[in-house]
Amino acid sequence: MFAEACGHARRVAVLASVEAVLGWDEQTMLPRAAAGHRADQAAALAAIVHRLRTDAAQGERLHGLAAGPLATGGSPEQQATIRLLRRDFEKQARLPPRLVEELARTGVGAQQAWVAARAGSSWKMLEPWLDRMFALKREQADCQRPDLDRYDSLMDDYEPGARWRDVVGRFEPLRAAIVPLVQACRESSTQPDDRILTSATYPIDAQRPFVRDVAVRIGFDFDRGRLDTTAHPFCTTLGPDDCRITTRWNERSLPTALYGVLHEAGHGLYEQGLRRDWYGLPPGETASLGIHESQSRLWENMVGRSTSFWEWCLPLARAAFPAALGDADVATVHEALMVVRPSFIRVEADEVTYNLHVMMRFDLERAVVQGDLAVADLPAAWNDRFEKDFGMRPPDDAHGVLQDIHWSAGLVGYFPTYTLGNIYAAQLMAAARRRFSGLDDDFAAGRFQALLAWLREEVHAAGRMLESDPLVERATGSPVQADWLVQSLWERYGAAYGL
Amino acid sequence: MFAEACGHARRVAVLASVEAVLGWDEQTMLPRAAAGHRADQAAALAAIVHRLRTDAAQGERLHGLAAGPLATGGSPEQQATIRLLRRDFEKQARLPPRLVEELARTGVGAQQAWVAARAGSSWKMLEPWLDRMFALKREQADCQRPDLDRYDSLMDDYEPGARWRDVVGRFEPLRAAIVPLVQACRESSTQPDDRILTSATYPIDAQRPFVRDVAVRIGFDFDRGRLDTTAHPFCTTLGPDDCRITTRWNERSLPTALYGVLHEAGHGLYEQGLRRDWYGLPPGETASLGIHESQSRLWENMVGRSTSFWEWCLPLARAAFPAALGDADVATVHEALMVVRPSFIRVEADEVTYNLHVMMRFDLERAVVQGDLAVADLPAAWNDRFEKDFGMRPPDDAHGVLQDIHWSAGLVGYFPTYTLGNIYAAQLMAAARRRFSGLDDDFAAGRFQALLAWLREEVHAAGRMLESDPLVERATGSPVQADWLVQSLWERYGAAYGL
Repeated sequence: MFAEACGHARRVAVLASVEAVLGWDEQTMLPRAAAGHRADQAAALAAIVHRLRTDAAQGERLHGLAAGPLATGGSPEQQATIRLLRRDFEKQARLPPRLVEELARTGVGAQQAWVAARAGSSWKMLEPWLDRMFALKREQADCQRPDLDRYDSLMDDYEPGARWRDVVGRFEPLRAAIVPLVQACRESSTQPDDRILTSATYPIDAQRPFVRDVAVRIGFDFDRGRLDTTAHPFCTTLGPDDCRITTRWNERSLPTALYGVLHEAGHGLYEQGLRRDWYGLPPGETASLGIHESQSRLWENMVGRSTSFWEWCLPLARAAFPAALGDADVATVHEALMVVRPSFIRVEADEVTYNLHVMMRFDLERAVVQGDLAVADLPAAWNDRFEKDFGMRPPDDAHGVLQDIHWSAGLVGYFPTYTLGNIYAAQLMAAARRRFSGLDDDFAAGRFQALLAWLREEVHAAGRMLESDPLVERATGSPVQADWLVQSLWERYGAAYGL
Repeated sequence: MFAEACGHARRVAVLASVEAVLGWDEQTMLPRAAAGHRADQAAALAAIVHRLRTDAAQGERLHGLAAGPLATGGSPEQQATIRLLRRDFEKQARLPPRLVEELARTGVGAQQAWVAARAGSSWKMLEPWLDRMFALKREQADCQRPDLDRYDSLMDDYEPGARWRDVVGRFEPLRAAIVPLVQACRESSTQPDDRILTSATYPIDAQRPFVRDVAVRIGFDFDRGRLDTTAHPFCTTLGPDDCRITTRWNERSLPTALYGVLHEAGHGLYEQGLRRDWYGLPPGETASLGIHESQSRLWENMVGRSTSFWEWCLPLARAAFPAALGDADVATVHEALMVVRPSFIRVEADEVTYNLHVMMRFDLERAVVQGDLAVADLPAAWNDRFEKDFGMRPPDDAHGVLQDIHWSAGLVGYFPTYTLGNIYAAQLMAAARRRFSGLDDDFAAGRFQALLAWLREEVHAAGRMLESDPLVERATGSPVQADWLVQSLWERYGAAYGL
């Protein structure tokens, strides 16, 4: 019966991976006029997948397995599979098929509306779509986990087990440390000079092979993946050997693509590190979006912004961009990467102020879901809060409430996982540094295998058998706390600003 | 009941269009290691689509409709829809689901094997896949139309109503005219000079916008389509507003991409000209592959190789490729396009010898399907026949039996539609020239709307309500015959060779 239940779950995973193909193609390839039909395709497939996910025979199998000997006496993989497949099943079975189809269809339409709205900075083009989407998400929240607060019910899709009150409790000390750090950086007499990275030209034709080589070096396998171009970078998985990342290109800024690709390739390394033999089942799936983000942020910030990484990388960059970096040394480039400067766009934010962006979205979307803020009032609430946190007001909605795709895509309850990921990343990296004393020598020589192998063993191989907190605790030997991130930010940015 | 039957057929069409997304992505984007999972995806979706196609309730609806008043008293669209949906249903219902899944799965594996086999010119890599594929196709033939000859049963998927004995009868006079034309060209003292198109460099970055502009000018709508790069050019439709064409690029040859894109855009114009309101139903579907090919060949050869087309196109080409074409005049370029020269690769063949390639494949695949030739003997049979028809022997299987993807993809019975398309194209173009006396003036001015509008009205708008022969006869006023093609080839190539 266990084999049958797994076979069914795998068949569902294969069809769900076809949804991922539709989604990737929609983001990267879809002709302008084709969005309507793509919505029909997505809705039709979502309905089929949902019907399979809630198949009564599978429900009976899982019910039987949960009462049987494997549920407590099987291997850890078997126990986790029975427990989690059953929990997934019950959650799915509480969603009406009409709602599932409607969410898929509205998601495609809203994302296309978002592209146009952002391009024209026109909130009015998006508002009716977001209104509809938040209504659907509230309905989803009420259906799938009636035992939970609405926001917690949604967040559970991305960060299983997380509760918003705990997240607030974890974010508060982080916020209490970041606000004075930003202030101290602003007021310091030492200001890092970033002209080397902002005043030159980096031909995009030279950036492409350069960032691809960096991705290969940290371990991304292009036989099992791709790199493409989109306005909003992302990583998605179309199958166990088909992980696709995207990036933006900016001729005036090498970090845009370089750190974009280090970030997305970090996600990709996690996907490519999952257990192939458990594809489509909990031991072969990712733990949470927070853990996913910890992997991307670890490679992007903890590795990619280190001096030792640039000792290896700078000669390559010099060869690729001789006009821009011909005379650069590691200290100059590293200094240029350490600028803390409040800015409007989250995905362009520095490592320090980034978390303020996330906390703001977390508070705003929670207020909408919990009924304390109307969708129509989002732009004003956004701008007021932004001014309070960052000391400046977005010039238009394209630089404010319209900048992110998440809400249009129905990803509500998703934002907090970004900062949870930063917290996990710093704690994991500190543990890796304790475990391997020569890590910086490795990076300086372009060797990233030891770090990746450790992440594969401690994080990737666990699948989603553990939730985020116990997973990080097991890997690092201490309970999750923001202290490691606070310490890392203060140390690295404090040094750059002479604090 | 009619509305319900149409609704069901449209839902099937939407899911079948997801299969097209998987196929397009497989051909253009798939990472090397991802083919296995893509086969699982294709097989899972094919099984679902087949289950829907053979849904018993739909069968009952169609049975009822066929006996009802609409079947004989409805609009032409309604009558054709009832008749053809019912025929499709019965054909599908005779296929075992296992066979449908197996064909989808084997198709993905065989196509990936073909890519590797062709690259290494290794017949042995492909042989077991083709052996399996032909066995499956024979089984499919026997199941779906037990009343027909096996080859006719397969050909009916691509060219409804066509019978191989009739096709042989139509090909024979064509062959009888082409063989002496090729010989006369070879022996003529006048030989067209093609150095202008073969001895210069055409930077690919300049080819891209150039061929795209040409496609736009003949009417291809990029809001409803794309152009991408593949080893084997094709056109596929992912939805009513999502028609995608591909091409190859060759820096040493402008015709490779230019005529490739004219060809595929010709297919695309047909797809984009279908009736949107009948999407997924016979009045909004293409008539046959032969008619499809007639549209591509008409734009590629009848329009694109005309002197008047080059009067418009040459100034653009000169501007795009000043080093190669700066001094060229229309007569020189046109002469260079008129070379008849036997060659190994069908997709690179000139317009005259092309049909000999097709007839050879038609005879070989028929022999395999009908049991007169073993798959293992295909390479030798290919080479012997090629030597007989073309006076030379392929140097290896990559230039012989391995060159085309069709058999690997399960497209057996497909090849004859290429030459049928040439026959229809010549007959349609002759009728268009009778209808519009100023067509060459139009082309010379870059105006293609009158021709396209006529094709839309006479061919595209008919959907598949008529089979190929009556459709061409209605549009041209005479029964289908190869005479128009013979006349067109002898006139145009005879002039170039001073015959």
